[in-house]
Amino acid sequence: VFWTFVEPSNIRAGEVLIEGSRAHHLGRVLRVQPGEKGVVVAEGREYSVVVGSVHRDQVLTRILESRTVSNEPKIRVTLLQSLLPNADFDAVIEATTAVGITRLVAVQAARSVVRSGPDRLPRWATIAESAAAQSHRGRVPEVLGPLSLSSALAGFDRPLLVLDPQAGERLEAPPDGVSGVTFAVGPEGGWTDAELAEFALARARPVSLGPRILRARLAPVVATAILVAQR
Amino acid sequence: VFWTFVEPSNIRAGEVLIEGSRAHHLGRVLRVQPGEKGVVVAEGREYSVVVGSVHRDQVLTRILESRTVSNEPKIRVTLLQSLLPNADFDAVIEATTAVGITRLVAVQAARSVVRSGPDRLPRWATIAESAAAQSHRGRVPEVLGPLSLSSALAGFDRPLLVLDPQAGERLEAPPDGVSGVTFAVGPEGGWTDAELAEFALARARPVSLGPRILRARLAPVVATAILVAQR
Repeated sequence: VFWTFVEPSNIRAGEVLIEGSRAHHLGRVLRVQPGEKGVVVAEGREYSVVVGSVHRDQVLTRILESRTVSNEPKIRVTLLQSLLPNADFDAVIEATTAVGITRLVAVQAARSVVRSGPDRLPRWATIAESAAAQSHRGRVPEVLGPLSLSSALAGFDRPLLVLDPQAGERLEAPPDGVSGVTFAVGPEGGWTDAELAEFALARARPVSLGPRILRARLAPVVATAILVAQR
Repeated sequence: VFWTFVEPSNIRAGEVLIEGSRAHHLGRVLRVQPGEKGVVVAEGREYSVVVGSVHRDQVLTRILESRTVSNEPKIRVTLLQSLLPNADFDAVIEATTAVGITRLVAVQAARSVVRSGPDRLPRWATIAESAAAQSHRGRVPEVLGPLSLSSALAGFDRPLLVLDPQAGERLEAPPDGVSGVTFAVGPEGGWTDAELAEFALARARPVSLGPRILRARLAPVVATAILVAQR
Protein backbone atom coordinates (compact mmCIF):
# COMPACT_ATOMS: atom_id res chain seq x y z
CA VAL A 1 0.00 0.00 0.00
CA PHE A 2 1.67 3.24 -1.15
CA TRP A 3 1.22 6.64 0.49
CA THR A 4 1.66 9.95 -1.33
CA PHE A 5 0.74 13.63 -1.24
CA VAL A 6 -0.88 15.71 -4.02
CA GLU A 7 -2.11 19.26 -4.57
CA PRO A 8 -5.85 19.85 -4.00
CA SER A 9 -6.17 20.63 -7.75
CA ASN A 10 -5.22 17.00 -8.47
CA ILE A 11 -8.46 15.79 -6.86
CA ARG A 12 -11.22 15.57 -9.49
CA ALA A 13 -14.63 13.91 -9.67
CA GLY A 14 -13.87 10.47 -8.25
CA GLU A 15 -10.26 10.51 -9.45
CA VAL A 16 -6.81 11.66 -8.33
CA LEU A 17 -4.09 12.44 -10.84
CA ILE A 18 -0.59 12.03 -9.40
CA GLU A 19 1.99 13.96 -11.41
CA GLY A 20 5.66 14.83 -11.74
CA SER A 21 8.26 13.49 -9.33
CA ARG A 22 5.57 11.89 -7.15
CA ALA A 23 4.28 9.86 -10.13
CA HIS A 24 7.85 9.05 -11.08
CA HIS A 25 8.56 7.76 -7.56
CA LEU A 26 5.43 5.57 -7.59
CA GLY A 27 5.98 4.21 -11.10
CA ARG A 28 9.74 3.88 -11.29
CA VAL A 29 10.87 3.40 -7.69
CA LEU A 30 7.93 1.63 -6.00
CA ARG A 31 6.86 0.01 -9.34
CA VAL A 32 3.18 0.50 -8.57
CA GLN A 33 0.88 -1.44 -10.96
CA PRO A 34 -2.72 -0.89 -12.13
CA GLY A 35 -5.10 -2.43 -9.57
CA GLU A 36 -2.78 -1.66 -6.64
CA LYS A 37 -4.24 0.22 -3.66
CA GLY A 38 -2.81 3.20 -1.83
CA VAL A 39 -3.53 6.40 0.03
CA VAL A 40 -3.34 9.93 -1.38
CA VAL A 41 -3.37 12.92 0.96
CA ALA A 42 -4.39 16.44 -0.02
CA GLU A 43 -5.01 19.35 2.31
CA GLY A 44 -6.43 17.63 5.35
CA ARG A 45 -8.15 14.74 3.59
CA GLU A 46 -6.99 11.18 2.99
CA TYR A 47 -8.21 9.28 -0.09
CA SER A 48 -8.09 5.50 -0.41
CA VAL A 49 -7.44 4.93 -4.10
CA VAL A 50 -6.85 2.15 -6.61
CA VAL A 51 -4.41 2.67 -9.45
CA GLY A 52 -5.98 2.89 -12.92
CA SER A 53 -3.06 3.63 -15.19
CA VAL A 54 0.66 4.26 -14.78
CA HIS A 55 2.35 6.50 -17.36
CA ARG A 56 5.64 8.33 -17.40
CA ASP A 57 5.13 11.18 -14.88
CA GLN A 58 1.38 10.52 -14.51
CA VAL A 59 -0.41 7.97 -12.33
CA LEU A 60 -4.21 8.06 -12.53
CA THR A 61 -6.12 6.61 -9.59
CA ARG A 62 -9.80 6.09 -8.72
CA ILE A 63 -11.10 7.18 -5.31
CA LEU A 64 -12.62 4.37 -3.21
CA GLU A 65 -13.37 6.46 -0.12
CA SER A 66 -12.21 9.59 1.64
CA ARG A 67 -11.91 10.78 5.24
CA THR A 68 -10.30 13.50 7.35
CA VAL A 69 -6.60 12.76 7.94
CA SER A 70 -6.23 10.51 10.97
CA ASN A 71 -2.52 10.21 11.77
CA GLU A 72 -1.71 13.77 12.85
CA PRO A 73 -0.60 14.65 16.41
CA LYS A 74 -3.09 16.52 18.57
CA ILE A 75 -0.58 19.36 19.03
CA ARG A 76 1.18 21.60 16.48
CA VAL A 77 4.93 21.42 17.09
CA THR A 78 7.28 23.99 15.53
CA LEU A 79 10.99 23.17 15.74
CA LEU A 80 13.51 26.03 15.54
CA GLN A 81 16.51 23.93 14.53
CA SER A 82 19.96 25.46 14.32
CA LEU A 83 21.92 24.54 11.26
CA LEU A 84 23.98 21.37 11.63
CA PRO A 85 26.35 19.63 9.23
CA ASN A 86 24.22 18.58 6.24
CA ALA A 87 23.98 14.86 7.02
CA ASP A 88 22.86 15.63 10.59
CA PHE A 89 20.38 18.31 9.51
CA ASP A 90 18.83 15.96 6.94
CA ALA A 91 18.60 13.20 9.58
CA VAL A 92 16.83 15.62 11.95
CA ILE A 93 14.26 16.56 9.29
CA GLU A 94 13.62 12.89 8.52
CA ALA A 95 13.30 11.69 12.11
CA THR A 96 11.31 14.63 13.52
CA THR A 97 8.92 14.43 10.55
CA ALA A 98 8.25 10.76 11.30
CA VAL A 99 7.74 11.51 15.00
CA GLY A 100 5.31 14.34 14.21
CA ILE A 101 6.53 17.94 13.87
CA THR A 102 4.31 20.45 12.07
CA ARG A 103 6.97 22.91 10.96
CA LEU A 104 10.77 23.12 10.95
CA VAL A 105 12.53 26.49 10.86
CA ALA A 106 16.24 26.39 10.07
CA VAL A 107 18.11 28.86 12.28
CA GLN A 108 21.59 30.24 11.79
CA ALA A 109 23.13 29.89 15.28
CA ALA A 110 26.43 31.45 16.31
CA ARG A 111 28.05 28.05 16.82
CA SER A 112 26.55 26.34 13.75
CA VAL A 113 29.61 25.06 11.91
CA VAL A 114 27.85 25.37 8.55
CA ARG A 115 26.24 28.32 6.78
CA SER A 116 23.37 27.32 4.52
CA GLY A 117 21.39 29.52 2.20
CA PRO A 118 17.81 29.23 0.95
CA ASP A 119 19.20 27.10 -1.89
CA ARG A 120 18.92 24.07 0.38
CA LEU A 121 15.18 24.57 0.96
CA PRO A 122 14.04 22.40 -1.99
CA ARG A 123 16.23 19.54 -0.75
CA TRP A 124 14.88 19.91 2.80
CA ALA A 125 11.28 19.97 1.50
CA THR A 126 11.91 16.78 -0.48
CA ILE A 127 13.28 15.01 2.60
CA ALA A 128 10.28 16.17 4.65
CA GLU A 129 7.77 14.98 2.04
CA SER A 130 9.46 11.64 1.61
CA ALA A 131 9.63 11.06 5.39
CA ALA A 132 5.99 12.18 5.76
CA ALA A 133 4.92 9.63 3.13
CA GLN A 134 6.99 6.83 4.69
CA SER A 135 5.55 7.49 8.14
CA HIS A 136 1.95 7.91 6.84
CA ARG A 137 1.55 11.50 8.02
CA GLY A 138 -1.56 13.52 7.18
CA ARG A 139 0.55 16.53 6.16
CA VAL A 140 4.04 17.40 5.02
CA PRO A 141 5.82 19.54 7.60
CA GLU A 142 6.61 23.01 6.31
CA VAL A 143 10.35 23.78 6.18
CA LEU A 144 11.42 27.45 6.40
CA GLY A 145 14.62 29.44 6.62
CA PRO A 146 17.43 29.68 7.29
CA LEU A 147 16.47 32.64 9.49
CA SER A 148 18.49 34.61 11.99
CA LEU A 149 17.58 33.74 15.58
CA SER A 150 15.83 37.10 16.09
CA SER A 151 13.60 36.54 13.03
CA ALA A 152 12.88 32.97 14.11
CA LEU A 153 11.79 34.12 17.57
CA ALA A 154 8.90 36.17 16.16
CA GLY A 155 5.57 34.81 15.09
CA PHE A 156 5.40 31.12 15.92
CA ASP A 157 3.21 29.27 18.42
CA ARG A 158 3.55 29.89 22.15
CA PRO A 159 4.69 28.53 24.56
CA LEU A 160 8.24 28.99 23.26
CA LEU A 161 10.77 26.61 24.80
CA VAL A 162 14.53 26.54 24.41
CA LEU A 163 16.52 23.38 25.06
CA ASP A 164 19.33 24.24 27.43
CA PRO A 165 21.21 21.50 29.32
CA GLN A 166 21.69 23.97 32.22
CA ALA A 167 17.95 24.56 32.69
CA GLY A 168 16.43 23.43 35.98
CA GLU A 169 13.07 22.55 34.45
CA ARG A 170 12.61 19.33 32.43
CA LEU A 171 10.84 19.24 29.09
CA GLU A 172 7.39 17.69 29.49
CA ALA A 173 4.42 17.15 27.21
CA PRO A 174 2.14 20.23 27.40
CA PRO A 175 -1.21 19.63 29.09
CA ASP A 176 -4.14 18.52 26.91
CA GLY A 177 -5.77 21.51 25.30
CA VAL A 178 -2.54 23.32 24.41
CA SER A 179 -2.83 23.54 20.63
CA GLY A 180 0.72 24.52 19.69
CA VAL A 181 4.25 24.72 21.01
CA THR A 182 7.56 25.96 19.61
CA PHE A 183 10.93 24.64 20.76
CA ALA A 184 14.46 25.59 19.81
CA VAL A 185 17.49 23.27 19.62
CA GLY A 186 21.05 24.56 19.44
CA PRO A 187 24.08 23.29 17.52
CA GLU A 188 26.63 20.76 18.84
CA GLY A 189 28.42 23.47 20.85
CA GLY A 190 25.20 24.80 22.39
CA TRP A 191 23.75 28.31 22.42
CA THR A 192 26.01 31.26 23.25
CA ASP A 193 25.24 33.47 26.24
CA ALA A 194 24.14 36.20 23.81
CA GLU A 195 21.67 33.81 22.18
CA LEU A 196 20.33 32.67 25.56
CA ALA A 197 19.83 36.34 26.45
CA GLU A 198 17.87 36.79 23.22
CA PHE A 199 15.67 33.82 24.16
CA ALA A 200 15.09 35.32 27.61
CA LEU A 201 14.08 38.63 26.03
CA ALA A 202 11.56 36.72 23.88
CA ARG A 203 10.23 35.14 27.10
CA ALA A 204 11.31 31.64 26.04
CA ARG A 205 11.27 29.02 28.83
CA PRO A 206 14.57 27.12 29.18
CA VAL A 207 14.02 23.38 29.57
CA SER A 208 16.43 20.45 29.68
CA LEU A 209 16.22 16.83 28.54
CA GLY A 210 17.71 15.60 31.79
CA PRO A 211 21.23 15.00 33.02
CA ARG A 212 22.54 12.94 30.10
CA ILE A 213 24.14 14.77 27.20
CA LEU A 214 22.50 14.21 23.80
CA ARG A 215 24.18 14.85 20.46
CA ALA A 216 22.75 17.74 18.45
CA ARG A 217 21.11 15.37 15.98
CA LEU A 218 19.46 13.29 18.71
CA ALA A 219 18.11 16.03 21.01
CA PRO A 220 15.34 17.30 18.65
CA VAL A 221 14.09 13.74 18.09
CA VAL A 222 13.86 12.98 21.81
CA ALA A 223 12.22 16.36 22.46
CA THR A 224 9.65 15.85 19.70
CA ALA A 225 8.82 12.38 21.05
CA ILE A 226 8.13 13.90 24.48
CA LEU A 227 6.10 16.87 23.15
CA VAL A 228 3.97 14.78 20.81
CA ALA A 229 3.65 11.94 23.37
CA GLN A 230 2.72 9.68 20.41
CA ARG A 231 -0.77 11.20 20.25
CA VAL B 1 36.26 17.94 30.73
CA PHE B 2 36.71 14.29 29.68
CA TRP B 3 34.51 11.39 30.84
CA THR B 4 35.66 7.78 30.97
CA PHE B 5 34.98 4.41 32.59
CA VAL B 6 37.45 2.15 34.44
CA GLU B 7 37.44 -1.15 36.31
CA PRO B 8 37.09 -0.96 40.12
CA SER B 9 40.64 -2.37 40.40
CA ASN B 10 41.94 0.82 38.75
CA ILE B 11 40.83 2.89 41.76
CA ARG B 12 43.68 3.10 44.30
CA ALA B 13 44.40 5.26 47.32
CA GLY B 14 43.57 8.71 45.98
CA GLU B 15 44.47 7.80 42.39
CA VAL B 16 42.90 6.29 39.30
CA LEU B 17 45.00 4.57 36.66
CA ILE B 18 43.38 4.62 33.22
CA GLU B 19 44.79 1.90 30.95
CA GLY B 20 44.64 0.32 27.50
CA SER B 21 42.31 1.62 24.83
CA ARG B 22 40.70 4.08 27.25
CA ALA B 23 44.08 5.67 27.97
CA HIS B 24 44.88 5.64 24.28
CA HIS B 25 41.60 7.43 23.49
CA LEU B 26 42.27 10.09 26.16
CA GLY B 27 45.91 10.64 25.19
CA ARG B 28 45.86 10.25 21.43
CA VAL B 29 42.32 11.22 20.39
CA LEU B 30 41.23 13.76 23.01
CA ARG B 31 44.87 14.87 23.58
CA VAL B 32 44.33 15.23 27.33
CA GLN B 33 47.19 17.06 29.11
CA PRO B 34 48.55 16.93 32.68
CA GLY B 35 46.48 19.33 34.82
CA GLU B 36 43.30 18.72 32.85
CA LYS B 37 40.16 17.74 34.78
CA GLY B 38 37.70 14.98 34.03
CA VAL B 39 35.37 12.38 35.45
CA VAL B 40 36.11 8.68 35.86
CA VAL B 41 33.28 6.25 36.57
CA ALA B 42 33.69 2.85 38.20
CA GLU B 43 30.91 0.58 39.45
CA GLY B 44 28.37 3.11 40.65
CA ARG B 45 30.75 5.86 41.73
CA GLU B 46 31.88 8.97 39.87
CA TYR B 47 35.34 10.43 40.57
CA SER B 48 36.35 13.98 39.72
CA VAL B 49 40.00 13.71 38.80
CA VAL B 50 42.91 15.79 37.59
CA VAL B 51 45.42 14.32 35.16
CA GLY B 52 48.90 13.72 36.58
CA SER B 53 50.77 12.04 33.75
CA VAL B 54 49.95 10.85 30.24
CA HIS B 55 51.92 7.91 28.88
CA ARG B 56 51.37 5.54 26.01
CA ASP B 57 48.43 3.35 27.19
CA GLN B 58 48.49 4.74 30.75
CA VAL B 59 46.96 7.94 32.11
CA LEU B 60 47.45 8.49 35.85
CA THR B 61 44.98 10.80 37.60
CA ARG B 62 44.50 12.12 41.13
CA ILE B 63 41.06 11.98 42.77
CA LEU B 64 39.63 15.36 43.82
CA GLU B 65 36.29 14.09 45.09
CA SER B 66 33.90 11.20 44.62
CA ARG B 67 30.16 10.68 44.73
CA THR B 68 27.45 8.18 43.76
CA VAL B 69 26.72 8.33 40.03
CA SER B 70 24.13 11.02 39.35
CA ASN B 71 23.10 10.79 35.69
CA GLU B 72 21.35 7.42 35.64
CA PRO B 73 17.61 7.05 34.89
CA LYS B 74 15.36 6.10 37.80
CA ILE B 75 14.21 3.01 35.91
CA ARG B 76 16.16 0.04 34.49
CA VAL B 77 15.28 -0.34 30.81
CA THR B 78 16.16 -3.54 28.92
CA LEU B 79 15.80 -3.38 25.14
CA LEU B 80 15.27 -6.64 23.22
CA GLN B 81 16.40 -5.36 19.83
CA SER B 82 16.03 -7.49 16.71
CA LEU B 83 19.05 -7.54 14.47
CA LEU B 84 19.07 -4.78 11.88
CA PRO B 85 21.55 -3.99 9.11
CA ASN B 86 24.84 -3.18 10.84
CA ALA B 87 24.75 0.61 10.42
CA ASP B 88 21.22 0.76 11.81
CA PHE B 89 22.01 -1.59 14.71
CA ASP B 90 25.08 0.46 15.64
CA ALA B 91 23.01 3.67 15.48
CA VAL B 92 20.39 2.12 17.79
CA ILE B 93 23.05 1.16 20.36
CA GLU B 94 24.51 4.67 20.24
CA ALA B 95 21.23 6.58 20.50
CA THR B 96 19.49 4.37 23.08
CA THR B 97 22.63 4.43 25.25
CA ALA B 98 22.61 8.23 25.23
CA VAL B 99 18.89 8.31 26.06
CA GLY B 100 19.36 5.87 28.93
CA ILE B 101 18.94 2.11 28.42
CA THR B 102 20.43 -0.26 31.00
CA ARG B 103 20.88 -3.32 28.81
CA LEU B 104 20.53 -4.22 25.13
CA VAL B 105 19.88 -7.79 24.04
CA ALA B 106 20.34 -8.53 20.34
CA VAL B 107 17.59 -10.83 19.09
CA GLN B 108 17.52 -12.87 15.90
CA ALA B 109 14.04 -12.16 14.51
CA ALA B 110 12.47 -14.06 11.64
CA ARG B 111 12.45 -10.97 9.40
CA SER B 112 15.90 -9.65 10.41
CA VAL B 113 17.67 -9.31 7.06
CA VAL B 114 21.04 -9.94 8.69
CA ARG B 115 22.38 -12.82 10.75
CA SER B 116 25.03 -11.80 13.27
CA GLY B 117 27.07 -14.00 15.51
CA PRO B 118 28.62 -13.32 18.93
CA ASP B 119 31.70 -12.06 17.03
CA ARG B 120 30.03 -8.63 16.84
CA LEU B 121 29.69 -8.33 20.62
CA PRO B 122 33.08 -6.60 21.18
CA ARG B 123 32.18 -3.98 18.54
CA TRP B 124 28.75 -3.43 20.11
CA ALA B 125 30.31 -3.11 23.57
CA THR B 126 32.78 -0.52 22.26
CA ILE B 127 29.96 1.53 20.72
CA ALA B 128 27.99 1.35 23.98
CA GLU B 129 30.97 2.46 26.09
CA SER B 130 31.84 5.30 23.76
CA ALA B 131 28.21 6.54 23.68
CA ALA B 132 27.96 6.19 27.46
CA ALA B 133 31.08 8.34 27.90
CA GLN B 134 29.89 10.97 25.41
CA SER B 135 26.51 11.24 27.12
CA HIS B 136 28.01 11.23 30.65
CA ARG B 137 26.24 8.08 31.79
CA GLY B 138 26.94 6.54 35.19
CA ARG B 139 27.23 3.05 33.66
CA VAL B 140 27.91 1.39 30.35
CA PRO B 141 24.86 -0.52 29.14
CA GLU B 142 25.45 -4.25 28.97
CA VAL B 143 25.13 -5.70 25.44
CA LEU B 144 24.16 -9.39 25.11
CA GLY B 145 23.33 -11.85 22.34
CA PRO B 146 22.38 -12.47 19.69
CA LEU B 147 19.77 -14.72 21.30
CA SER B 148 16.78 -16.50 19.82
CA LEU B 149 13.50 -14.82 20.71
CA SER B 150 12.53 -17.63 23.09
CA SER B 151 15.82 -17.28 25.01
CA ALA B 152 15.46 -13.49 25.09
CA LEU B 153 11.95 -13.74 26.55
CA ALA B 154 13.21 -15.45 29.70
CA GLY B 155 14.78 -13.77 32.64
CA PHE B 156 14.66 -10.02 32.15
CA ASP B 157 12.73 -7.37 34.06
CA ARG B 158 8.93 -7.30 34.01
CA PRO B 159 6.71 -5.73 32.74
CA LEU B 160 7.61 -7.06 29.30
CA LEU B 161 6.33 -4.91 26.44
CA VAL B 162 6.40 -5.61 22.72
CA LEU B 163 6.18 -2.78 20.19
CA ASP B 164 3.46 -3.68 17.71
CA PRO B 165 1.95 -1.01 15.43
CA GLN B 166 -1.39 -2.90 15.57
CA ALA B 167 -1.63 -2.69 19.38
CA GLY B 168 -4.54 -0.73 20.80
CA GLU B 169 -2.61 0.44 23.86
CA ARG B 170 0.00 3.23 23.56
CA LEU B 171 3.44 3.00 25.14
CA GLU B 172 3.61 5.20 28.24
CA ALA B 173 6.18 5.82 30.95
CA PRO B 174 5.63 3.30 33.76
CA PRO B 175 4.34 4.80 37.04
CA ASP B 176 6.92 5.97 39.59
CA GLY B 177 8.10 3.06 41.69
CA VAL B 178 8.38 0.57 38.82
CA SER B 179 12.07 -0.31 38.99
CA GLY B 180 12.53 -2.06 35.65
CA VAL B 181 10.91 -2.65 32.29
CA THR B 182 11.80 -4.71 29.21
CA PHE B 183 10.62 -3.82 25.71
CA ALA B 184 11.09 -5.57 22.38
CA VAL B 185 11.44 -3.90 18.97
CA GLY B 186 11.08 -5.80 15.72
CA PRO B 187 12.95 -5.53 12.41
CA GLU B 188 11.89 -3.29 9.48
CA GLY B 189 9.27 -5.83 8.35
CA GLY B 190 7.82 -6.23 11.86
CA TRP B 191 7.26 -9.36 13.93
CA THR B 192 5.74 -12.46 12.33
CA ASP B 193 2.46 -13.88 13.65
CA ALA B 194 4.43 -16.78 15.14
CA GLU B 195 6.67 -14.34 17.02
CA LEU B 196 3.68 -12.34 18.28
CA ALA B 197 2.19 -15.63 19.51
CA GLU B 198 5.43 -16.33 21.35
CA PHE B 199 5.23 -12.89 23.00
CA ALA B 200 1.63 -13.57 24.00
CA LEU B 201 2.66 -16.88 25.55
CA ALA B 202 5.32 -15.00 27.54
CA ARG B 203 2.55 -12.61 28.71
CA ALA B 204 4.15 -9.63 26.93
CA ARG B 205 1.89 -6.56 26.62
CA PRO B 206 1.62 -5.26 23.02
CA VAL B 207 1.95 -1.46 22.86
CA SER B 208 2.18 0.95 19.93
CA LEU B 209 3.97 4.24 19.39
CA GLY B 210 0.87 5.79 17.84
CA PRO B 211 -0.50 5.97 14.32
CA ARG B 212 2.63 7.14 12.50
CA ILE B 213 5.01 4.53 11.16
CA LEU B 214 8.57 4.71 12.50
CA ARG B 215 11.58 3.18 10.81
CA ALA B 216 13.14 0.25 12.68
CA ARG B 217 16.12 2.35 13.72
CA LEU B 218 13.97 5.20 15.08
CA ALA B 219 11.33 3.23 17.03
CA PRO B 220 13.63 2.05 19.87
CA VAL B 221 14.93 5.61 20.39
CA VAL B 222 11.45 7.10 20.66
CA ALA B 223 10.32 4.26 22.93
CA THR B 224 13.34 4.68 25.22
CA ALA B 225 12.71 8.44 25.44
CA ILE B 226 9.13 7.76 26.56
CA LEU B 227 10.07 5.01 29.05
CA VAL B 228 12.92 6.96 30.63
CA ALA B 229 10.94 10.23 30.53
CA GLN B 230 14.31 12.01 30.88
CA ARG B 231 14.47 11.14 34.58
